[in-house]
Amino acid sequence: MTRILGVLGGMGPLASAQFMLRLTLLTPAARDQDHVPSVLWSDPRVPDRTAARLGGGEDPLPALLRGLRGLEGAGCGAVAIPCNTAHGWFDAMQAATTLPILHIVDAAEAELRRLGVAPGPIGVMGTEGTLAMRLYQDRLEPRGWRCLVPSPEEMRRLVSPAIAEVKANRVAEAHRPLAEAARVLVARGARAVVLGCTEIPLGIAAGPALPFPVCDTIDALARTAIAWAAQRH
Amino acid sequence: MTRILGVLGGMGPLASAQFMLRLTLLTPAARDQDHVPSVLWSDPRVPDRTAARLGGGEDPLPALLRGLRGLEGAGCGAVAIPCNTAHGWFDAMQAATTLPILHIVDAAEAELRRLGVAPGPIGVMGTEGTLAMRLYQDRLEPRGWRCLVPSPEEMRRLVSPAIAEVKANRVAEAHRPLAEAARVLVARGARAVVLGCTEIPLGIAAGPALPFPVCDTIDALARTAIAWAAQRH
Repeated sequence: MTRILGVLGGMGPLASAQFMLRLTLLTPAARDQDHVPSVLWSDPRVPDRTAARLGGGEDPLPALLRGLRGLEGAGCGAVAIPCNTAHGWFDAMQAATTLPILHIVDAAEAELRRLGVAPGPIGVMGTEGTLAMRLYQDRLEPRGWRCLVPSPEEMRRLVSPAIAEVKANRVAEAHRPLAEAARVLVARGARAVVLGCTEIPLGIAAGPALPFPVCDTIDALARTAIAWAAQRH
Repeated sequence: MTRILGVLGGMGPLASAQFMLRLTLLTPAARDQDHVPSVLWSDPRVPDRTAARLGGGEDPLPALLRGLRGLEGAGCGAVAIPCNTAHGWFDAMQAATTLPILHIVDAAEAELRRLGVAPGPIGVMGTEGTLAMRLYQDRLEPRGWRCLVPSPEEMRRLVSPAIAEVKANRVAEAHRPLAEAARVLVARGARAVVLGCTEIPLGIAAGPALPFPVCDTIDALARTAIAWAAQRH
């Protein structure tokens, strides 16, 4: 039995497409048949995760569970969700399916270690929802990491508008503010910066490379998914 | 009811991922919720289409029909297949589903017109299977187009090896031979060149732009899909 990867995506759709691209490019393959079979459920109608958490917006969980049902129906053996903020509903999703969900924060930690970054102070950029839910802090700090995050003012001026630019296909415009926010975190002592929202690596990649380690959570999740697919079964 | 696009992909997987990326970037959207809901069935295990047609390889039709069943089960309203050669099984697939399948050759013709190219001589690059099945010639020549294709020697030396490079993730290596094959067709009188295998635009995009109109069949199919999704329903 080949393992089929389920991808619960559309949050945003460009990040999901980029995940599929990186899943393919990071797979050691000599022909089509060597690649990871996968089903991408790209539902950009899922209610905004940050608005739900911070502003009393519509609950995204019913739409997330519909996607999980769809991936189960398609015969998938595990689920990757290339949206950090959606992991605020991780426990509810995992309780609702027997399929293992590959946690993006664990993937980010593995990627930091792969980049040679040892536990200690790191920068974490993400949506307001991801930061408010302490998705990185509560999962990584017990393991020896210390998460430095942008100030509310930096979120309002730099990170949040840049994420919205990527969701509106204005990727190049997102580079400068995201790069500035990352540099600020390094200046405060971060040894590396986690791009903890899957829109952020798209904006960061649209300009010159940053002179410190950055953890792209799209690539991190893709590597974790490829390792899952390669396991004996 | 929102229209959900089904994408029967994995042939190859990089081309499918690029299709999802272009579907997103070509959609006029200001936020996630403006994008096209879609399900990508990426099954790179589908037996090689060209080998099936030319060399008596395994029939891909059962795998293609399994994918269609999956997309029907996911609630899709139409199907796009970002693989030209798979359209050699178009009639059998369309007969097996009530979902409309958006034909990639019709999408390519619409894209040629959008590029300002009027019916007349065009170059068509594709897999050996696509050329042997006359997918472009038989569909477009009755409409006033004349298809110039690479010689068997050019296929063997330039086009077929370059397509295999892309399927093995060696995209940059594919540019030079593909660009040479395209230039040869223009020298023979083609007014534009159709990149009639979804691996070819990936290789072409990995180097300097060509100085004549090229029809990218990934973009062409994405535009047709976006127009389908925007229709009243």
